Amino acid sequence: MTKDNGEFLKAYLQDRRKIVEDALQRYLPPANNSPQEIYQAVHYSVFAGGKRIRPILCLAAVEAVGGDLAPAMPIACALELIHTYSLIHDDLPAMDNDDFRRGKPTNHKVFGEGIAILAGDALLTEAFVLLSHTEKVRMPVEKRVAVIREIAQAAGIAGMVGGQALDVLSAKSSSSVEILSEIHRRKTGALIMASVKTGAIISNAREEKIKALAEYGMNVGMAFQIADDILNVEGDRNLLGKETGSDAALGKITYPFLMGMDYAKDKLHKHIEAAIESLSIFDERVLPLRLIAHYVMERKT
Amino acid sequence: MTKDNGEFLKAYLQDRRKIVEDALQRYLPPANNSPQEIYQAVHYSVFAGGKRIRPILCLAAVEAVGGDLAPAMPIACALELIHTYSLIHDDLPAMDNDDFRRGKPTNHKVFGEGIAILAGDALLTEAFVLLSHTEKVRMPVEKRVAVIREIAQAAGIAGMVGGQALDVLSAKSSSSVEILSEIHRRKTGALIMASVKTGAIISNAREEKIKALAEYGMNVGMAFQIADDILNVEGDRNLLGKETGSDAALGKITYPFLMGMDYAKDKLHKHIEAAIESLSIFDERVLPLRLIAHYVMERKT
Repeated sequence: MTKDNGEFLKAYLQDRRKIVEDALQRYLPPANNSPQEIYQAVHYSVFAGGKRIRPILCLAAVEAVGGDLAPAMPIACALELIHTYSLIHDDLPAMDNDDFRRGKPTNHKVFGEGIAILAGDALLTEAFVLLSHTEKVRMPVEKRVAVIREIAQAAGIAGMVGGQALDVLSAKSSSSVEILSEIHRRKTGALIMASVKTGAIISNAREEKIKALAEYGMNVGMAFQIADDILNVEGDRNLLGKETGSDAALGKITYPFLMGMDYAKDKLHKHIEAAIESLSIFDERVLPLRLIAHYVMERKT
Repeated sequence: MTKDNGEFLKAYLQDRRKIVEDALQRYLPPANNSPQEIYQAVHYSVFAGGKRIRPILCLAAVEAVGGDLAPAMPIACALELIHTYSLIHDDLPAMDNDDFRRGKPTNHKVFGEGIAILAGDALLTEAFVLLSHTEKVRMPVEKRVAVIREIAQAAGIAGMVGGQALDVLSAKSSSSVEILSEIHRRKTGALIMASVKTGAIISNAREEKIKALAEYGMNVGMAFQIADDILNVEGDRNLLGKETGSDAALGKITYPFLMGMDYAKDKLHKHIEAAIESLSIFDERVLPLRLIAHYVMERKT
């Protein structure tokens, strides 16, 4: 990435993160509702300082096809709520048993396991409350149902939940590159793909462009997961805000573990190349998506 | 209930349970998908022999307003998936820590906590996959979005999840009849209310009838929870298929615990009376709903 592009992207991501966080504040029920513990647990994890990559990708996809950002805001936020729920549940003792996330104690460490499980359940459900609330934003109902379907499928058993199940189970069994690739596709790829696809769908993008963005999203998603696994080995604990080496300790399969670090980095590279290649049919408004693909490859946190 | 009505209801519930279970078999992804553990965990709890009271109420509401049963089937099934998810999560060690449910080991006892959490997550998400899948059934998209909104709200933090959080927290704090009533309203009332409301909504029922059915649903739901609490004290362990006395052991607040058994039974009675009263504006097609209200009061399991 050139210095100019790097600075543009930094400002772009900062700006978008702010827009997304303001919208999350507006859409989420306030933290002082009753019972406070559950609302606080929800707010704690939603505002724990995530990168907001899924909502930002959704908005960038809207931009790439010349759509209107306003109707995309509840969708972008719903994607972040679903992502946050998945982090809370993944961190539980019965799953990855992580004590820290983004430099802060994980949800169950602060609120206890029972409330953490419920906070995750709440976030998943509130995503669909948000997506189905017609007064939040005007959108043709057909599009609304298509978006709900796309996101529910990506988050569901054929997507994210099934991927996490495979991941949990893989630690206990013999594995292969094929299974690992399926874990990444379902666990991370599916929801990131849905993020860009839904942005395109509500912007009335042509089928060809929706397909290209879907391909971009799947590749960026899989690259994102490989980058995560690489950072878990050689990342900076202080920058990451969580322990490194936990995958190896849990016996999780990752590309670095299964195929070595060179293979992992090459695989990451290839996914990013494929992602950028699929953007070739778009005009200059696709720049943020292109730069985000580079960023996923080069990120340190 | 007269002997004739009792026999009619028995046959009616049996018939409806069969219809619902056949539809659940059709709609759920097959148990041999990959990874098998999570699909099996989902099937294990969905087909563990529930009463199917929410789907049956949804279908009975359709009937009461002269609607068509076919478009209600995916909704009825989605309600059961959401109910099943809530049971799996409620039974977890971090929540009620129950080892048995309907005479069988609870989900986490069979599949482990990690997979049980994910099976719950999967069921909640698949409910929205089902509700948004337009090819499963033809329905005006406006109705579809209204149904998704109704169910998401009932299941969400303002409804079921918030109610369960209040319930988990109440065991540790001082309590009152007001809090207890709120727990029942959110934890059980909200989704049962949504069951009859959505049946009425998709059947183009008049606003007055939707309102009456909502009132019926909330009262039946609250009665259902009080009956549960009473059975937890004086029910037959063999008929129930789970331990009795667990509420007291967990220090949970219930009407029997807080106000005594006579008060609890009187409260149950009043909710059922109110439920039946709200059915007065319907014609004879409302009979199943009326008999189900009686059944909720008299049930032994």
